[in-house]
Amino acid sequence: MKKLLRDPRTLVRDGLDGLAATHPGLLRVEAGPELVVRADAPVRGKVGLVSGGGSGHEPLHTGFVGFGMLDAAVPGPVFTSPTPDPILEATRSVSGGAGVLHIVKNYTGDVLNFEVAADLARAEGIDVETVLVDDDVAVQDSTHTAGRRGVAGTVLVEKIAGAAAERGDDLETVAAIARGIVADVRSMGVALAAPVVPHSGLPSFDLADDEIEIGIGIHGEPGRERIPWEPVDGIVARLLQPIVDDLPFTSLDDVLLLVNGMGGTPLLELSVVLDAANQWLSDRSIHVARTLVGSYATSLDMQGCSITLLRLTDERKALWDAPVETAALRWGR
Amino acid sequence: MKKLLRDPRTLVRDGLDGLAATHPGLLRVEAGPELVVRADAPVRGKVGLVSGGGSGHEPLHTGFVGFGMLDAAVPGPVFTSPTPDPILEATRSVSGGAGVLHIVKNYTGDVLNFEVAADLARAEGIDVETVLVDDDVAVQDSTHTAGRRGVAGTVLVEKIAGAAAERGDDLETVAAIARGIVADVRSMGVALAAPVVPHSGLPSFDLADDEIEIGIGIHGEPGRERIPWEPVDGIVARLLQPIVDDLPFTSLDDVLLLVNGMGGTPLLELSVVLDAANQWLSDRSIHVARTLVGSYATSLDMQGCSITLLRLTDERKALWDAPVETAALRWGR
Repeated sequence: MKKLLRDPRTLVRDGLDGLAATHPGLLRVEAGPELVVRADAPVRGKVGLVSGGGSGHEPLHTGFVGFGMLDAAVPGPVFTSPTPDPILEATRSVSGGAGVLHIVKNYTGDVLNFEVAADLARAEGIDVETVLVDDDVAVQDSTHTAGRRGVAGTVLVEKIAGAAAERGDDLETVAAIARGIVADVRSMGVALAAPVVPHSGLPSFDLADDEIEIGIGIHGEPGRERIPWEPVDGIVARLLQPIVDDLPFTSLDDVLLLVNGMGGTPLLELSVVLDAANQWLSDRSIHVARTLVGSYATSLDMQGCSITLLRLTDERKALWDAPVETAALRWGR
Repeated sequence: MKKLLRDPRTLVRDGLDGLAATHPGLLRVEAGPELVVRADAPVRGKVGLVSGGGSGHEPLHTGFVGFGMLDAAVPGPVFTSPTPDPILEATRSVSGGAGVLHIVKNYTGDVLNFEVAADLARAEGIDVETVLVDDDVAVQDSTHTAGRRGVAGTVLVEKIAGAAAERGDDLETVAAIARGIVADVRSMGVALAAPVVPHSGLPSFDLADDEIEIGIGIHGEPGRERIPWEPVDGIVARLLQPIVDDLPFTSLDDVLLLVNGMGGTPLLELSVVLDAANQWLSDRSIHVARTLVGSYATSLDMQGCSITLLRLTDERKALWDAPVETAALRWGR
């Protein structure tokens, strides 16, 4: 295995130290348990947003802590859910009296551990709501999931709910906005090469030299089908058709289009995916009103991408456009 | 070859179309010749900044067009210098009456073609200054270069000179600031795996499964040495020692530290590199006053990173902190 790391056992901690050194004014990294918390948390009177999950998906979630997005992120070990303790500690750290929203990707371990932490926090008098994100249309049930997996759509839930909390919406409203996003967001991904898992030094699955996997998860979970490589327009159609069919998105919709890199794919290729997605959607009169391109919900060094569509409303556009200042996403402040 | 592309022959154009669709308010992409130009160019009375070079290094340079950085970028074919024509056209497009600065990475083709374009622009009455960036300490002379190569330090030249131009400095001053950065910036890189060149479908060099190459260029040019993989602290020391020795940087210096991904390396690993670099510099009492981490000057999908140090002054800190709004770098506006 060739990776830029010190030791697989300290990988998460070492990466958090790097993050903390880069953004001292924005966030702090707490030890024992390890948490990334907004520098000015708890913000009095503001709903606190907490997300988390296994590491290896950076910048998700630690890179989204800051003004207008998350108040805390709970990074578990690589591809492994954090335990209830750090989730509870994060919940306490960001509780400013207006309640706390847990944003949880739908994996069995995450769901269970966030649920336990929410119960414990409630027992301490903190009002907690939970929203489960399950945007991946590829498969029903999977290696670590009952129901659909939560993937890159989580970034959009965190941004838009974060903006609602920042403008002063109450817990019930922020939770309703987040659940509205979950109802209207769909994703699907493709892998060109598997990620290499640090602890084993091995690829998490095998793909032949000319093969790609459509519908892959972000932990190497199986997708829908393996096919020979084809030019990007074919790949993009295989991702967008199931996404559009599922909601369904129609020619009346304004959408946000997220082209997300899986960690090992450069920006140039993502820009080409975006161009192909724009053409496919334009041919169906689905109007792309907002765009985000980059590696935001990754799977270690996996090569590939995912595409996410969110149905937009005027309110969602305003919340999307609202200022955000985090390590990974920042504009307009 | 497995890449997310339509056709190697249209790769650059397709990527530019994606970029244009993502940032319509920020920049425009012109056809025939292909250029990326700031949306409001030419800005009257402001020095125009033009950079460019072969494609495959995105977001360099196209992702740095916008407020507070470049006025235009000239993307050549992959790893191939643009010809004088588009450079001349870019120079005209951003000429607002205060002259134009060409920021050129030190590769023989780039140097020659920017020189021809500058002469032609001067013949049309446009005042042009040129700054050559040659920050790579790894080797003297190389595959495409006489003297040292220009690499990720170029990002810092573009940001800081861009801020000087934005605040209204004249051409002579902006050029002097840019040359001052070049004098005080040093870089070196490492490859864990070679990039795959789209036109050939082949890796640009071969590395064994346990081998890394120290001092690699951004076009697959040879480095200083091939060694067996080692943990990140050893790799970081092999990059930082020659950088620090070369200027030299001393314990009296405030520095900007850039940890730059080569395209195929995820943020988690870059954060670990940053942590190791911070420790190494701290042990030598070199003070990291500013930090940037991410994939900014890439080499297609090459796995690896580079480290760049810039000696900071109060003026450089202020120019670095000044607002910037581009596709790839944005803060504070």
